[in-house]
Amino acid sequence: MQTIITLPAACDFHIHTRQGVLMEMVAPRIAEGGVSLCYVMVEPNLKPPITSTEQALEYKAQLERLAPNVTFLMSLYLCPELTPEEIRKAKKHGIVGVKSYPRGVTTNSESGIESYAIYYPVFKAMEEVGLILNLHGELPSDSDQQLHNDFPKLKIVLEHATTKAAVDTVKALGDTIGCTITIHHLQLTVDDWAGQCHNFCKPVAKFPHDRQALRDVVLEGHPRFFLGTDSAPHPAYLKECAHSCAGVFTTPLAIPYLATILDSFGAINCLRKFACENGKKFYGVNEEEGKYREITLVKETLLVPHSYSFDESVEERRGSIVPFFAGKNLTWKIIN
Amino acid sequence: MQTIITLPAACDFHIHTRQGVLMEMVAPRIAEGGVSLCYVMVEPNLKPPITSTEQALEYKAQLERLAPNVTFLMSLYLCPELTPEEIRKAKKHGIVGVKSYPRGVTTNSESGIESYAIYYPVFKAMEEVGLILNLHGELPSDSDQQLHNDFPKLKIVLEHATTKAAVDTVKALGDTIGCTITIHHLQLTVDDWAGQCHNFCKPVAKFPHDRQALRDVVLEGHPRFFLGTDSAPHPAYLKECAHSCAGVFTTPLAIPYLATILDSFGAINCLRKFACENGKKFYGVNEEEGKYREITLVKETLLVPHSYSFDESVEERRGSIVPFFAGKNLTWKIIN
Repeated sequence: MQTIITLPAACDFHIHTRQGVLMEMVAPRIAEGGVSLCYVMVEPNLKPPITSTEQALEYKAQLERLAPNVTFLMSLYLCPELTPEEIRKAKKHGIVGVKSYPRGVTTNSESGIESYAIYYPVFKAMEEVGLILNLHGELPSDSDQQLHNDFPKLKIVLEHATTKAAVDTVKALGDTIGCTITIHHLQLTVDDWAGQCHNFCKPVAKFPHDRQALRDVVLEGHPRFFLGTDSAPHPAYLKECAHSCAGVFTTPLAIPYLATILDSFGAINCLRKFACENGKKFYGVNEEEGKYREITLVKETLLVPHSYSFDESVEERRGSIVPFFAGKNLTWKIIN
Repeated sequence: MQTIITLPAACDFHIHTRQGVLMEMVAPRIAEGGVSLCYVMVEPNLKPPITSTEQALEYKAQLERLAPNVTFLMSLYLCPELTPEEIRKAKKHGIVGVKSYPRGVTTNSESGIESYAIYYPVFKAMEEVGLILNLHGELPSDSDQQLHNDFPKLKIVLEHATTKAAVDTVKALGDTIGCTITIHHLQLTVDDWAGQCHNFCKPVAKFPHDRQALRDVVLEGHPRFFLGTDSAPHPAYLKECAHSCAGVFTTPLAIPYLATILDSFGAINCLRKFACENGKKFYGVNEEEGKYREITLVKETLLVPHSYSFDESVEERRGSIVPFFAGKNLTWKIIN
């Protein structure tokens, strides 16, 4: 029985790093969680908004000051301000992709092929220069598949798959289509977030057969499926309330969580491909100079903290985050 | 267009009335909500527990002191202490039925026909004297259907149906099988309780096609389907927390809620059968002497309170209940 594993530090291709005091708590935890490279999803709700290459690079610099040993790959998000010129500029400065948020697709339309049409010049530029398009959709929609037909060389990542249907669809598509799976969706089903706000995320965890499909594709080692935690910290008071924010916080213990969960269904040997290799290959990226490292995992009990404080100046529920599996034991820990 | 309706005060065949200060707040609200007769589900977690006829009658007396104009029908719950003798005694003193809670079925078994076998003498006595068996199950299970086969004259009510499958099964069974539907399950689907603890109940609300099946059976006026709110008040702090209690509180505005929801899908004319007639006929019960009354509903806006206080001596979230639809407008109100 393998009780010590050494492997490359992992890559998290979907992370939310916030701003201000929250960012100051989160960023240093990325490396602690066993991750050396992450792809930062900028969001429409960041203030100031990050819609230009300059803004993304300034945000990256802030993160690097807090976590100098981590490679931060940056994204922009799809919005009407984004032009083909900005795409070319972004590529020159190392921006990796563009995230499409559901309600950000257009200003006036919520669905359908039409909603993407205004972005076709942007997609064309992305295809030409090789930026990734990150889709929030739970399932590749008809318009997503139309997009794939219209831009066959545009690399598209379906983010946080939660269903067997999504897994099946991605597998059936070609080499330009990748897919991230979160840590928590490999563990949770609908029963786990019913009445348990800290397990509530969007997309919500689905049924046992859906979770099994996610686990199976990890077990299979399918090269186009890889880790994207969607770790999204929210202060406890915004979870434990009448209308909970959606999001699960896994950053500080990302790889101990993942190893524990994979081990629970006999997939510990799939950790390397899923978390360290597949994503890098799909994206064609690597750690920045000097930032590659290895981690050593050992099969030992690790208690997940009940909370992570990010602001001691306010009341506890306002100034702390309740992590995934709070107060529970993991079975793997990082020892270096 | 009908904007005033006069009909018999309604019957709620599934209500939780609690104890102590909570009961003191809830009980007087029953009549305010437009209900003149209710069937009280005693629960294993009441303290002291209510496992005997005497205890149930004492509980009924407490409720009557708080709500003298309401007919309280009483239940016992299925537990190993319950004997055929107690069943016959219960019947003599007006107890109406016995509720089977999922984990209360046996002390050592969680599933299967075996789990009911030890209760067969009790069921036989219930069948003989005419007590109702109330099943918590979401779907009639194989063992429930076996029970129906073994005790064909035993009246069984499937509580709080939430799925099309449950509706279809009950419809396919015979005249001894009834089914309650809550107010909130006629309104909510899974999206409404995801991250919204005050809409979280068990069984959870399911998918739109399930809700449609519940609505359709009300529209159809099927005589074996009737109102049982399962109204279950929990202090706000036990909902707005990491592990929310399951339950929706509808008692104070039961019939305004129901009228509003029925009207939204063209079923306002089904209110009388569903809420006032079908249940009484199935149970073969009526209001106690002098407690029958009529209510008049008018189509006018009614704002649902943000909370109902039951204990002014403690912090607000500990001493109040957030009702269903808190802060929203209903379209029907009771004017008498």
